[in-house]
Amino acid sequence: MINKERHFGDRLSASLRATGTPLCVGIDPHRGLLPALFTDGDPITGLRHFAMNVVEAARGLVPAVKPQAAMFEAFGPQGVGVLAETAQAAKDAGLLVIMDAKRGDIGSTSAAYAQAYLASDAPFYSDALTINPWMGLDTIMPFLEVAEAAGNGLFILVRTSNEGAADLQELPTSDETVYEHLANRLAPLATRMVGESGTSSLGIVAGATVPEQAEHLRATLPHSPFLIPGFGAQGAGPAHATIALGKEAGSFTGGLVNSSRGIIFCDAAQQAQNHEQHQAAMRDAIRTQIALLQTAY
Amino acid sequence: MINKERHFGDRLSASLRATGTPLCVGIDPHRGLLPALFTDGDPITGLRHFAMNVVEAARGLVPAVKPQAAMFEAFGPQGVGVLAETAQAAKDAGLLVIMDAKRGDIGSTSAAYAQAYLASDAPFYSDALTINPWMGLDTIMPFLEVAEAAGNGLFILVRTSNEGAADLQELPTSDETVYEHLANRLAPLATRMVGESGTSSLGIVAGATVPEQAEHLRATLPHSPFLIPGFGAQGAGPAHATIALGKEAGSFTGGLVNSSRGIIFCDAAQQAQNHEQHQAAMRDAIRTQIALLQTAY
Repeated sequence: MINKERHFGDRLSASLRATGTPLCVGIDPHRGLLPALFTDGDPITGLRHFAMNVVEAARGLVPAVKPQAAMFEAFGPQGVGVLAETAQAAKDAGLLVIMDAKRGDIGSTSAAYAQAYLASDAPFYSDALTINPWMGLDTIMPFLEVAEAAGNGLFILVRTSNEGAADLQELPTSDETVYEHLANRLAPLATRMVGESGTSSLGIVAGATVPEQAEHLRATLPHSPFLIPGFGAQGAGPAHATIALGKEAGSFTGGLVNSSRGIIFCDAAQQAQNHEQHQAAMRDAIRTQIALLQTAY
Repeated sequence: MINKERHFGDRLSASLRATGTPLCVGIDPHRGLLPALFTDGDPITGLRHFAMNVVEAARGLVPAVKPQAAMFEAFGPQGVGVLAETAQAAKDAGLLVIMDAKRGDIGSTSAAYAQAYLASDAPFYSDALTINPWMGLDTIMPFLEVAEAAGNGLFILVRTSNEGAADLQELPTSDETVYEHLANRLAPLATRMVGESGTSSLGIVAGATVPEQAEHLRATLPHSPFLIPGFGAQGAGPAHATIALGKEAGSFTGGLVNSSRGIIFCDAAQQAQNHEQHQAAMRDAIRTQIALLQTAY
């Protein structure tokens, strides 16, 4: 049952227009990369301060943040508690929360993950969740149903940006690769989840390594928001990163471009002497990346 | 660097011989299925009592338990805390812990998940972790390296048992299906992780739906432990479930057959009036399933 009061695609569309940028700030508190400012005392307190500082740096500048669940899990159950706090703080700051947990399992287990992240009373607030589709389309349906009812969204891993992504995703079947086959199977589900804005709540992770791939995926999934990983530290330039994001009235409207390390571990942030300097350095890096993406407009 | 003091494949091999059964008890505290005995009061306390009761029921009877992370995450951060407690309690009870979290991500993120579950100081104690390979072989390597150093293991999702598994896993490429291609790619890694017992620390989830698939996977991965889902409630009978598990000196030695609902939600357990009755009912169900699997020997 589609929630008509609340629709992730519509919220994303509105936030993209309001902020004028597709930049999504990744919250990836790599244990080994956190500056000393956050590791001198209690590790959980340091993790919390770091994550909250990223939220504050992103406030008002970008449409969304993407917390990386793994980095919080590495701190144990208390770290997972900070993940929930961070997501709630981002929501309270007016940011969309793209929970990057890459979950996926058989039906009843996917339903439990959906309850954890996508339900209206989910303990881990998320506007959308990244989903691993390897186990098949039936394993996506519980996520889709819970997301529809709660007005939340999905980003399904169709084509990731890592080197080894080709191992399975690009295997050639009779007349298309595995990921193209997946995109074709997702198309009717994406259509089912289109909102009033014309944007679907079913998005994909589209780490296309060549422009033709991105354009082909866009043709297959015209209404899906694309989550583009790998801008900045992972390598893609602004023109490449935005190629499949539609342009309209001054904004990219077709999805999000994520950047993590280039913001949260930029040199100035690493050298900050206190929390205020740290936050200001990240805010500067966010502004720089917004300007860089705008050059591709 | 392989840890020679401690090797998952060797531990599993020894436990299979010591207990004489491949039965693995799934700890899947589905929120909606927990008996009233565990839901009348504080939900986290109920979850803890339920999970600990499963551990106690399994103690001494089977080689391993398989906690399902999703079911704990659905209870929020405190539920994730109970997952860590449950894993530690299972270890203390002499059970191997197969952490069913199906994680997978790009390199540095997989490394964080490996730190959370597979490192020697992991906050979530696990003897082995289930891994989703969709993103490619490079995303498996951080798990493999951490597991090798800590003497832990992996179960990689090669062929799952759900109906939709065929959507991607069975797509035909030029001369094999996608999952067969994956199994072939994993073979050298499995060989690299073979221990003194002849069992590898790199296992696979092998939810083969027809016997030929299981036998073919066994030929490709002769040393890998197979984790067979779906015994009992999900449908496979004992002969089918054990077909690819080698037999030796009275025991199946080639892996684990998981059963969850048929044990933890069996009628007698659901009707138990107190924690002791609940534990005794599950213990009876475990004994029944051990006997049932033995009929296939």
